[in-house]
Amino acid sequence: MKDIEIAQQAKMDKITKIAEKAGLSSDQIEQYGDYKAKIKLPVKENSKSGKLILVTSINPTPAGEGKSTVTVGLGDAFSLLKKKTVIALREPSLGPVMGMKGGATGGGYSQVVPMEDINLHFTGDMHALTTANNTLSALIDNHIYQGNKLHLDQRRILWKRVLDINDRALRHVVIGIGGPTQGIPREDGFDITVASELMAILCLAEDIADLKKRIGRIVIGYTTDKEPVTVAQLGVTGAISLLLKDALKPNLVQTLAHTPAIIHGGPFANIAHGCNSVLATQTGLKLADYTLTEAGFGADLGAEKFLDIKTPVLGKTPDTIVVVATVRALKMHGGKPKNALKEEDLSALTAGYANLQKHVANMRRYNIPVVVAINQFSSDTEAELKHLKELCESDGTPALVADVWAKGGKGAIELAEKVSQLCEEKHDFKPLYAPEDDLQEKVEKIVTQIYGGANVVYGTKALRQLKDFKTLGWDHLPVCMAKTQYSLSDDPKAIGAPRDFTIHVREFVPKLGAGFVVALTGNVLTMPGLPKVPAANEMNLSNDGIISGLY
Amino acid sequence: MKDIEIAQQAKMDKITKIAEKAGLSSDQIEQYGDYKAKIKLPVKENSKSGKLILVTSINPTPAGEGKSTVTVGLGDAFSLLKKKTVIALREPSLGPVMGMKGGATGGGYSQVVPMEDINLHFTGDMHALTTANNTLSALIDNHIYQGNKLHLDQRRILWKRVLDINDRALRHVVIGIGGPTQGIPREDGFDITVASELMAILCLAEDIADLKKRIGRIVIGYTTDKEPVTVAQLGVTGAISLLLKDALKPNLVQTLAHTPAIIHGGPFANIAHGCNSVLATQTGLKLADYTLTEAGFGADLGAEKFLDIKTPVLGKTPDTIVVVATVRALKMHGGKPKNALKEEDLSALTAGYANLQKHVANMRRYNIPVVVAINQFSSDTEAELKHLKELCESDGTPALVADVWAKGGKGAIELAEKVSQLCEEKHDFKPLYAPEDDLQEKVEKIVTQIYGGANVVYGTKALRQLKDFKTLGWDHLPVCMAKTQYSLSDDPKAIGAPRDFTIHVREFVPKLGAGFVVALTGNVLTMPGLPKVPAANEMNLSNDGIISGLY
Repeated sequence: MKDIEIAQQAKMDKITKIAEKAGLSSDQIEQYGDYKAKIKLPVKENSKSGKLILVTSINPTPAGEGKSTVTVGLGDAFSLLKKKTVIALREPSLGPVMGMKGGATGGGYSQVVPMEDINLHFTGDMHALTTANNTLSALIDNHIYQGNKLHLDQRRILWKRVLDINDRALRHVVIGIGGPTQGIPREDGFDITVASELMAILCLAEDIADLKKRIGRIVIGYTTDKEPVTVAQLGVTGAISLLLKDALKPNLVQTLAHTPAIIHGGPFANIAHGCNSVLATQTGLKLADYTLTEAGFGADLGAEKFLDIKTPVLGKTPDTIVVVATVRALKMHGGKPKNALKEEDLSALTAGYANLQKHVANMRRYNIPVVVAINQFSSDTEAELKHLKELCESDGTPALVADVWAKGGKGAIELAEKVSQLCEEKHDFKPLYAPEDDLQEKVEKIVTQIYGGANVVYGTKALRQLKDFKTLGWDHLPVCMAKTQYSLSDDPKAIGAPRDFTIHVREFVPKLGAGFVVALTGNVLTMPGLPKVPAANEMNLSNDGIISGLY
Repeated sequence: MKDIEIAQQAKMDKITKIAEKAGLSSDQIEQYGDYKAKIKLPVKENSKSGKLILVTSINPTPAGEGKSTVTVGLGDAFSLLKKKTVIALREPSLGPVMGMKGGATGGGYSQVVPMEDINLHFTGDMHALTTANNTLSALIDNHIYQGNKLHLDQRRILWKRVLDINDRALRHVVIGIGGPTQGIPREDGFDITVASELMAILCLAEDIADLKKRIGRIVIGYTTDKEPVTVAQLGVTGAISLLLKDALKPNLVQTLAHTPAIIHGGPFANIAHGCNSVLATQTGLKLADYTLTEAGFGADLGAEKFLDIKTPVLGKTPDTIVVVATVRALKMHGGKPKNALKEEDLSALTAGYANLQKHVANMRRYNIPVVVAINQFSSDTEAELKHLKELCESDGTPALVADVWAKGGKGAIELAEKVSQLCEEKHDFKPLYAPEDDLQEKVEKIVTQIYGGANVVYGTKALRQLKDFKTLGWDHLPVCMAKTQYSLSDDPKAIGAPRDFTIHVREFVPKLGAGFVVALTGNVLTMPGLPKVPAANEMNLSNDGIISGLY
């Protein structure tokens, strides 16, 4: 059965009942239809301080690792064990939904529902972000058109427009043409909405006051004298903030097994930090004994950023980290071609294990208990599953098979028991870098200690920026690495666990609102394109309003 | 007190209570927070067939005529008279909200609430339209990029991108630049979302089946052989339709006096037909004894299109038409400058009355009872109000003063009594043109009988199109005139009631999905710009989430 069919056959509980289960009364939520709600802010304070479980993974491969599916299934397993549980996930972007098959709401019997709504417009957060982002763009171009009091250099505008659509034709555009009444011509480009700094801000803001503070300090570009210009200087902090008033409230839905799920915010894990909102995670911690959350891409990107960028704001580090791996994906990391993944191949698995091994070691480096979740696929052989478990255990890493796609929470009971046991282990979080380290020290610690690289080479522009940013006082912000998700290195083809490579930083991008500096390595795509046959071509809506063709 | 302050001090009823008042049970609506809902489709059938009241106006002037305010106040007056009433209005566009002061939710004590939500993201309909529109654009450009099986001519793409933002810099753009992996370069432009054909479609669709049919037949452009290409041929009717699944459901809110208000759809009244959705009006007619609705701009644009384009789909013509005028605006039509409008000036009023007189005569031409609502402003003198009443009455037109801004429904009791009396008058609707008239006959009937023009001159392109459209079988569709709203003619400066002028049609635009052909006269702006000091600059959001600076 297809994911959407399983989801459509589910008997959902009314969202008021899910809210009650999570400890929220009906006047603490705003209903969006019968099965979605926003949680009003501030979420009631209580004495609870639940355990936090971070789900991350090996470097993604075309074979799929199923991180969201494991997060949902594991959450349902905690519920089956009668633990008070909340799952916190990122909101899917609509662009990829129309492009490639594969939503972001889990799969099989480990899904969050209503899956169509969550994958389409949901509660409008993405649309609010798109609108706020592009309203700011319009205000910038209008400022230039109306006399340009701030002396913005139209060749040095950093703030790009966005759409929540995969649209390669908008990556590079020329705007403002058509004559003197149509604006000032300049080059611009559209990113996908999840790459907007406003998305990162929404996910790091602690409350409305913090949201406004962050929006006000966004650097939109430079003057003709190369001085940075902020949103506050443009005088529109209020207008941009009020467009995000409702988007800031976390969204409540449920899993197929009726576990409360908070799905809120979804920044890119390359150009941004790749985790759901701080407010969503905090809400989980306030309401539940166990909050399960995930970070985007592999542990080198998502988990590193969770631990180094998000936790200082969150004020809480994970009690256990779950690293998801699949036999199929590890065989690919071991060099097995995609069309041969169904063949049993213990030596490819052994070779590919190096990738998992490195990520587990990285997470241990933060001094947090780690467990490997082997996300079972029907083609996995008994021998392969056993071999992978043994490889992990020989390194002292507990590893458990989770069969969550087919069995839901029941497929992860043992994993949940292990995780809850690890959560009780005493440990002191050991951060990767100190806040006072400068940008170069931070980049180098990430590269050498997390990626396993030998050194960092900075391009001409990056070297100049290191000097400029020091002058501007931006040189002690956290670093957000923009790197391919497919490899620990900056070469997407270097699968497995490459060593002794060089990372090339070509440019830095100040994201003062988000509160970090992005370091660009390689080619980072911030606006995806559509494939030859987009998923959109298979979608339909029946006359009764039933959606099909969504994956 | 400012409109927003009056609105924020209002004690709203819960939307479930408003629904109940309208005759809808809680399982016939989907709540969006406590004070907004979507009405599930299909709306229950019942035997009721309520009266329909259309509110229209003179040609707008910078002095303001207050059509929405009168519609809301009049609706509240019907409620005070214990009539079961529903108000049906258009949804405001966010672009102008950020640009010029002045929302679209009425004013003073005649407002629909929650005004901030309605003026900002509301229930996401505009965002769904923006997304559906631009997803179609991305699919078109991707089709060209991926081999262009349909042989689309990239110089002849009709389908433009949209944003719900006033952004002049996006009127004319070049997209797809940056090299061979970034698409195919071509000229494009962004309209404001309310100008999208999808908005017109949403407002004319009778149900999901009709929505899909209309979307499928949208002409997106022409092949290199100049053959039209539709969305159905592109194979994405389903994907675009499902993005509008929820947007198709009418939205329920309330007036300050708790009269149910259905606010749904808001197409431009120049490039499109300027009325709220057929589904919203139909829902009103099914639920209430009196449904009050308005049409955009003056009666020459909005009401003509309501009567000639919307009513054939709606299957119902108005029982009474209310033409709104103000003393101030008529004095401007009579030549009084804007800065002198506070001075009493009966002769300017007499001169300006010609504009009102013409609109009233036009509405009478359809053989529907007409009443003039004089929307009172505090600067109006007793003598002026009396004089205007007498001018109307000497033409046999009933005219009543409505003081709805200051007094709400109480200020329009007499007007409501008169309207309800007129609704009982027997009359046979007399359409302006027959469906079988060709495009030229239709344009000429509109120009001579409604505008008061002498003749129509077609430009070279328009003449060629008249031939082409005949070949394509598009020559018997209704005509949607795109003309300035400020004058009965196509010259915005020709105020009052110009006569014997020529209307210049320079181009036709096929809107096969909406089911009409647009005739472009003069310069029609489909993407507004922001003013020197945008309204956005005064907006704020308090740390407690209270919005200010919205008008």
